[in-house]
Amino acid sequence: MRLVIDTDTASDDAVALMLAIATPGTQVEAITTVAGNVPLPQATANALVTTEFMGADIPVYAGRPGPLLRPAATAQHVHGPDGMSGVALPAPARSPRPEHAVETLVRLARENPRELTLVTLGPLSNVATALLVEPDLLRLYDRVYCMAGAPDGHGNISAVAEYNVWADPEAAAVVLAAPGDVTFVGWNVSRQSAVFTDADQARLRRMGTPRADFLLDVNAAVADWCRTVTGLDGFDLPDPVAMAVALRPDLVLRSERLHAAVATGDESRGLLMIDRRRAAPPPNVTIVWDVDTAAFKADIDRLCAA
Amino acid sequence: MRLVIDTDTASDDAVALMLAIATPGTQVEAITTVAGNVPLPQATANALVTTEFMGADIPVYAGRPGPLLRPAATAQHVHGPDGMSGVALPAPARSPRPEHAVETLVRLARENPRELTLVTLGPLSNVATALLVEPDLLRLYDRVYCMAGAPDGHGNISAVAEYNVWADPEAAAVVLAAPGDVTFVGWNVSRQSAVFTDADQARLRRMGTPRADFLLDVNAAVADWCRTVTGLDGFDLPDPVAMAVALRPDLVLRSERLHAAVATGDESRGLLMIDRRRAAPPPNVTIVWDVDTAAFKADIDRLCAA
Amino acid sequence: MRLVIDTDTASDDAVALMLAIATPGTQVEAITTVAGNVPLPQATANALVTTEFMGADIPVYAGRPGPLLRPAATAQHVHGPDGMSGVALPAPARSPRPEHAVETLVRLARENPRELTLVTLGPLSNVATALLVEPDLLRLYDRVYCMAGAPDGHGNISAVAEYNVWADPEAAAVVLAAPGDVTFVGWNVSRQSAVFTDADQARLRRMGTPRADFLLDVNAAVADWCRTVTGLDGFDLPDPVAMAVALRPDLVLRSERLHAAVATGDESRGLLMIDRRRAAPPPNVTIVWDVDTAAFKADIDRLCAA
Amino acid sequence: MRLVIDTDTASDDAVALMLAIATPGTQVEAITTVAGNVPLPQATANALVTTEFMGADIPVYAGRPGPLLRPAATAQHVHGPDGMSGVALPAPARSPRPEHAVETLVRLARENPRELTLVTLGPLSNVATALLVEPDLLRLYDRVYCMAGAPDGHGNISAVAEYNVWADPEAAAVVLAAPGDVTFVGWNVSRQSAVFTDADQARLRRMGTPRADFLLDVNAAVADWCRTVTGLDGFDLPDPVAMAVALRPDLVLRSERLHAAVATGDESRGLLMIDRRRAAPPPNVTIVWDVDTAAFKADIDRLCAA
Repeated sequence: MRLVIDTDTASDDAVALMLAIATPGTQVEAITTVAGNVPLPQATANALVTTEFMGADIPVYAGRPGPLLRPAATAQHVHGPDGMSGVALPAPARSPRPEHAVETLVRLARENPRELTLVTLGPLSNVATALLVEPDLLRLYDRVYCMAGAPDGHGNISAVAEYNVWADPEAAAVVLAAPGDVTFVGWNVSRQSAVFTDADQARLRRMGTPRADFLLDVNAAVADWCRTVTGLDGFDLPDPVAMAVALRPDLVLRSERLHAAVATGDESRGLLMIDRRRAAPPPNVTIVWDVDTAAFKADIDRLCAA
Repeated sequence: MRLVIDTDTASDDAVALMLAIATPGTQVEAITTVAGNVPLPQATANALVTTEFMGADIPVYAGRPGPLLRPAATAQHVHGPDGMSGVALPAPARSPRPEHAVETLVRLARENPRELTLVTLGPLSNVATALLVEPDLLRLYDRVYCMAGAPDGHGNISAVAEYNVWADPEAAAVVLAAPGDVTFVGWNVSRQSAVFTDADQARLRRMGTPRADFLLDVNAAVADWCRTVTGLDGFDLPDPVAMAVALRPDLVLRSERLHAAVATGDESRGLLMIDRRRAAPPPNVTIVWDVDTAAFKADIDRLCAA
Repeated sequence: MRLVIDTDTASDDAVALMLAIATPGTQVEAITTVAGNVPLPQATANALVTTEFMGADIPVYAGRPGPLLRPAATAQHVHGPDGMSGVALPAPARSPRPEHAVETLVRLARENPRELTLVTLGPLSNVATALLVEPDLLRLYDRVYCMAGAPDGHGNISAVAEYNVWADPEAAAVVLAAPGDVTFVGWNVSRQSAVFTDADQARLRRMGTPRADFLLDVNAAVADWCRTVTGLDGFDLPDPVAMAVALRPDLVLRSERLHAAVATGDESRGLLMIDRRRAAPPPNVTIVWDVDTAAFKADIDRLCAA
Repeated sequence: MRLVIDTDTASDDAVALMLAIATPGTQVEAITTVAGNVPLPQATANALVTTEFMGADIPVYAGRPGPLLRPAATAQHVHGPDGMSGVALPAPARSPRPEHAVETLVRLARENPRELTLVTLGPLSNVATALLVEPDLLRLYDRVYCMAGAPDGHGNISAVAEYNVWADPEAAAVVLAAPGDVTFVGWNVSRQSAVFTDADQARLRRMGTPRADFLLDVNAAVADWCRTVTGLDGFDLPDPVAMAVALRPDLVLRSERLHAAVATGDESRGLLMIDRRRAAPPPNVTIVWDVDTAAFKADIDRLCAA
């Protein structure tokens, strides 16, 4: 499996990158960065540092410094100002490549039609811009997985919206309107199946490996935020569970092909509006409802144990 | 129990009126009409005719000919042009009272503080206007029940909205913003617990009573529409199930106090946005999730058997 | 001429009230208050105090504490926290009448069909609510004048909107959609014809009358604000010039009957959208473009000289 | 002067292309096409045919088949189904180049920094997409002129909006938000200075040249539409007057640097909101208010006489 990963790299994106890099038989061809959790330069630095921590020399391309139409709104209140909980990370040894991430996404798709899997972990600003230049983009990738959405209407950044879709709702709308298949692994999945409880965290910490420590340390800010704000019993890992689904689709216990639209008005910004009527338009997205929690946690344990 | 009923009287409203009128120990003090399923004059005529069919001399007051801000959008495609499936009903013998329904709603509340129960079966245009004049209106009623909303996000008039809230979303927003308790019995409840299947319909028809025939005949258009559009196995009775909940709250198996807002923008018009976050604002509505289906159907059978 | 005045009484409203009260042959039948420049209780107190300053025993009725749908947004940054520049005014000796202003507006119109002139000096929340109860309201008044709008697209509260329309745009939309004649005297007129320059102010001050001092003193905060924000050479008197037009329509040099709609979306909230196309809908408002500046100033001088 | 022209080629675009091609000392380096007046394939064919009519071998690149976010809405009711009044034109001998117009706009700007002038005659979908990939695009061109906007609030496609901005308002917003200079020549200018009256048309027809006949024939549909809808005394040429301003800026009699925003909500879609307040944001556009009508008509006469 050959991957292209689009990411607003902060703490859970980093874990998702580690998971992809460490998965045998998987080749990460390129990482494209986008503003989201943190401003673009920070996301790019975090992606570089994470790949270097994993000893992987994957090209990183910087993309959109913000949404298509709106000012950027970060999630630094969740992930810390640097997106990595303020852990003292080394400066990256490498630089991003000069090509713009949008041009990279288009070029790789055209050069490798139906050969690459695209996984997005942040706002969809890069992918949507690429679609505006190459309307067939989604079909030029073999599969497309997005950490995106709150299809059950239970949001994290607002009452009804998940951050990635909320941050650039017009971009999400462009993606859902494009021809081709796309799978959304939303915050519903993370909240149900990707919560690392105190016991889970203790188990990882006891491993004493650099990877386990890295995972826990860069997610310390998220853990604090979850404790006080989301009411989860631990912290969740939205991007890693989306990545895990992309890496092995058998993790999915229940999913559904249906039609969803994205609300862009202020009051319901970023809401996924699912149409369950008989006369609904044809399906435009696969929504993942349930994944195998134990298997996902075992994947993370295996990653950290190495 | 003394009731005031606000209704855009069409076929299922008529059944709800019958149920209230026929319930022992219940006194319907006034019926106020509002544009909704049908234009205001038709709603008023239907309310008059239904009370006359039941032999009840209840004063009827006509109110808003449309939403606060929008043009009226009827549901005549569902209930038929007259709202009553074109059944040949006699012209009403009585006329509506001269007082405007909004002034009636305010007057009765002020004259009988905390003594009356208000049940709304249509768009909330009358109630919202009354609230603009008397901000304490909801607290001047003992209880307020509304057939309103699709709190599970499964709409009937759009992908995500129920007709009554969709028809005048600003009015619903005014009601949800007002101090006082209000209970929404939404389309979710009707779809789950108020569907009269072919077998149910046959049972009612076999009764051979005027009431059973009236119920089935005025809902013939709805039955057609459900068969072709909603995919329900039969036709549902949204207003009667809401009325039944008002008449005997023990019908409710599961309900929830929570905070909901109404979307008024075009794309998500009429959507109830429920806030399940820890930091949600204080509850402003009780949402009914489940009612006792068998008990409700028994209520309807008892009504028709008489 | 018998007047009903609806006002969010702050400094320039006060001058408009003085002008109406002092005009021979004019009878102010009622003053209704509405939230706007200042919260409702302050507006009511200011109306009472101003009538008492003028020695007039006019009944005052309190109305809407805010817009139809939105939270109230005052202009206390312009008129001072009390709306009267913090001048030490006596507490009002009288109280407002118990009737709700909306009910007053409806009652007086019904009792005196086509006999009264309605002048509005604040957001149109009261008038719009009255229209929801009595759709014929505007035609039950003989004439209706509103200080409202920035028909030239040059706003004071935003780039494109005038405060009264911006504060409750849905109310303004209800008024423009109602049958009947209405005349808007907007901020364009005030900016062009109702600016009291330093010389004008000095002339009034030299009069040494209680009225001149009152006018200048209660408008001190506005004068400051104009100096630093609007760039006018002096301070302008929007409500008095609208009142002057109502009191003697010959003040108008140029006006135009046309169709205007009100924008309610956030980005263009409160904008008057004038339709100058051939296929425009029928006129729904008279826009005043030019008034006789010298005659208006003479009216104010005469008021103050007394 | 070296030009890049972005165009939704219909009748008046064609005249603008002719004017640019025929102007001595001007080199048209590339024509990029965009959906607008007509669907993209028709716009591309019209651009090819027009250049061939002028004997110019200019590369044509096809771009966006519609707006960034919205469905395409053509102006075929104005320009005829083919955009050229149904005149029997030959099929183009050449084909568009394979490169996507957005990539062309970016490439030419990067290869020729500050050397080229960009003139846009249609919706800004191509330019906005190019800006999403190359945020410095406007500054990489020497100058940018757009036929865009109704800055006086007198619209053609709606009460308040001009077609090109209305058709893709989000694109226009992206352009106005980008760093760099841009000049809007709007419908106000066309209506005032680019109306060809019956006398003007007769003069051109009398020339008897292929160019004069081409101009008049392809604009026959527009002439009909203006006669019945806009009420102009003749038909106007919005794109040619914008092009003329680009070709010789001395045509401008009055222009103004100011800040404008674009409304994207449905009610005021495409409106230019000009901020004339003291505290307005810094200027982001030059609005042309007046041009030399006689000089413009002389330009057109000279073009046709050849």
